[in-house]
Amino acid sequence: MTALEQEIESLARAARAAARPLAALSTEVKNRALRQMAEALVSGHDAIIAANARDLDAGKQAGLSAAMLDRLMLDPKRIEAMAQGLREIEQLADPVGEITGMKRRPNGLMVGRMRVPLGVVGIIYESRPNVTADTAALCLKSGNAVVLRGGSEAIHSNRAIAEALGRAASSAGVPEGAITLVPTTDREAVRALLQQERYIDLVIPRGGYELINFVTKNSLIPVVKHDKGVCHLYVDRAADLAMAETIAFNAKVQRPGVCNATEAMLVHADVAERFLPSALDRLAAAGVEIRGCPRTRAIWSKSSAAKDTDWGEEFLDLILAVRVVDSLDEAIEHIARYGSGHTESIITGDLAAAGRFLREVDSSAVIVNASTRFNDGGQFGLGAEIGISTQKLHARGPMGLEELTSLKFIVLGDGHIRG
Amino acid sequence: MTALEQEIESLARAARAAARPLAALSTEVKNRALRQMAEALVSGHDAIIAANARDLDAGKQAGLSAAMLDRLMLDPKRIEAMAQGLREIEQLADPVGEITGMKRRPNGLMVGRMRVPLGVVGIIYESRPNVTADTAALCLKSGNAVVLRGGSEAIHSNRAIAEALGRAASSAGVPEGAITLVPTTDREAVRALLQQERYIDLVIPRGGYELINFVTKNSLIPVVKHDKGVCHLYVDRAADLAMAETIAFNAKVQRPGVCNATEAMLVHADVAERFLPSALDRLAAAGVEIRGCPRTRAIWSKSSAAKDTDWGEEFLDLILAVRVVDSLDEAIEHIARYGSGHTESIITGDLAAAGRFLREVDSSAVIVNASTRFNDGGQFGLGAEIGISTQKLHARGPMGLEELTSLKFIVLGDGHIRG
Repeated sequence: MTALEQEIESLARAARAAARPLAALSTEVKNRALRQMAEALVSGHDAIIAANARDLDAGKQAGLSAAMLDRLMLDPKRIEAMAQGLREIEQLADPVGEITGMKRRPNGLMVGRMRVPLGVVGIIYESRPNVTADTAALCLKSGNAVVLRGGSEAIHSNRAIAEALGRAASSAGVPEGAITLVPTTDREAVRALLQQERYIDLVIPRGGYELINFVTKNSLIPVVKHDKGVCHLYVDRAADLAMAETIAFNAKVQRPGVCNATEAMLVHADVAERFLPSALDRLAAAGVEIRGCPRTRAIWSKSSAAKDTDWGEEFLDLILAVRVVDSLDEAIEHIARYGSGHTESIITGDLAAAGRFLREVDSSAVIVNASTRFNDGGQFGLGAEIGISTQKLHARGPMGLEELTSLKFIVLGDGHIRG
Repeated sequence: MTALEQEIESLARAARAAARPLAALSTEVKNRALRQMAEALVSGHDAIIAANARDLDAGKQAGLSAAMLDRLMLDPKRIEAMAQGLREIEQLADPVGEITGMKRRPNGLMVGRMRVPLGVVGIIYESRPNVTADTAALCLKSGNAVVLRGGSEAIHSNRAIAEALGRAASSAGVPEGAITLVPTTDREAVRALLQQERYIDLVIPRGGYELINFVTKNSLIPVVKHDKGVCHLYVDRAADLAMAETIAFNAKVQRPGVCNATEAMLVHADVAERFLPSALDRLAAAGVEIRGCPRTRAIWSKSSAAKDTDWGEEFLDLILAVRVVDSLDEAIEHIARYGSGHTESIITGDLAAAGRFLREVDSSAVIVNASTRFNDGGQFGLGAEIGISTQKLHARGPMGLEELTSLKFIVLGDGHIRG
């Protein structure tokens, strides 16, 4: 083992050691810790902002874009928002200990399930420093130890945040090792982390394709991927076209850089001539570039021609691919082929079409007559989320506190033996 | 790509193509298929037995043990039992399409979850040929296509069974490709299968440590491990000792070769002198070899000395490791260190001790006053099981029809947009 591998193993082992007492912690202690963590961010904001300034300097020298630098930047207002996020997590119900489905079997045995923490959660992310605080808080509230591995561009900020959070948590009675930041940004540290299947129960990669691919290829630990969102909006022949136009505009324009924004619109041929001119004019007026199929372009000539690669592309920008389809089947087929299983929405007044779309489209959220932008933990009533899972196992869609837990069977007998 | 890799990819792609129509199949069609599959096994038993004879011959030449040959052997009675298993799966409720937790959000949006098939399930197993039939039936009933990869020792039997099942399923209206057996036993075929993350949604390894380790290391597909069972029975100071003796006997002796048999017994020091002599005499009389800690041996001298490696060992045999502990904490600590997270049971009349054991022991099933042998899909009321998961994500404990499905969010709006 290299020194780095030893360091990562010892850090994972310490997290595992913290996980057992952490799982038994009362909600009261966890909530007090969350309040003190929020307080520590606010009262320690000078140190955090100083650390952030080092990241910003390094980012400027490395030539990060203005948008990237803005995502990285922390000021007192943003730190207060981070603290507010922790206070909101404090308010959520504690999922640990819930007992469900307790039933008496014919032989008198009582069998049910108890919700318990996963144990140790590893998260590898590239995003803004607020992910450090949100993730630490969600893991703590769900009784899990967390090993955080943020991006190199935010390393000083992340260290300062994790240090403030860890100190506050300890002083509230949370075991040492419950919140750990991998102190190095070496890529080999990620590889070493992914080998700690003895100590880490789940690893969540949040970021671009390369990161997710690297994690999937190298992990011995179960992975829940938070992959891209290639979301579709299908305007059915039975759509209320005014509603469809409003939703299309919202789904594309309201926040184009997020994973639940719509990237492609499919329009039934029967309504394309009535729907497209007005809807696309409105999108174009908001600066949206339309990349259409030949039939779209025949109806609305300002569209550029969609290339093959535009179907299935996550633009994260004011770009919309538009295609005219002849049937609901063709729409479902297109989504199965090009979608990423994130979010798809149908606009229709036809109950049968809505029913088929709901059943047959295989995505984390399937929506009728609403914007794809609703696929979100807060909107779904889960509270804060650690991300949106695009895989089918364990957690699908917004991943909140419950998805950071596991259900074990509990059995109450009275001397029962197998016959 | 090698020819083998191409073959495996094309087989996985065909399974994926079958998965969509299969997911939409009615319960009626699936049940008819299961009845016809059962019928096909019975009416085709000559061909299956002839194929099995080739496996048995090869097994004898390869020097398989008598126990192994017995596990492999099929006769009309065993084939009828296999068919009966399919008829029982027909009787289970279809999990697909269930809608749960539908709630109205403050903005009027209705949000709930719908249970849908996973898609394509890969299973890699080393066990008896009946696994081929059980697995195919469970996957079909839950709307999943399945890619089966059985052990080389049963390849002819598995081929004959899969062929009979596939033909019967097709004639009942199940899409071609829904039930596929990897026709080669080449180890490289497993490696190639584990790369098909575009087409396969879940892979389940069932078998020994080496198989599970190989799959975990090489899979790009999410894995649910069915690992070993190092199950513990803890006799508390407040145990009913007669009950404890009966349960210990059942948990060790009733079927020692299965994963939910008890491998180690922990006994509280306060009751060890009263409990151990009679309990261990009875176990020894049934042929159980006792490997005790020094305190056990001081009380019951016929015990051999437990080696360090006996703690944490899955004997699958008439061997029991026995240790005297000073407290519930020490028992929980021992289990956390040496257990495999499968099944643990406490015998106690003390409510507080039972409560702590239930909360703090982190296993797929935690049991009070009953035999560890109850950790089983049938006993828990899930119906047939595909195995017992020892991991915490997605499926923990017996994995039945529900665990072969995924919950997606469904959302019903009325023109809702994000503000």
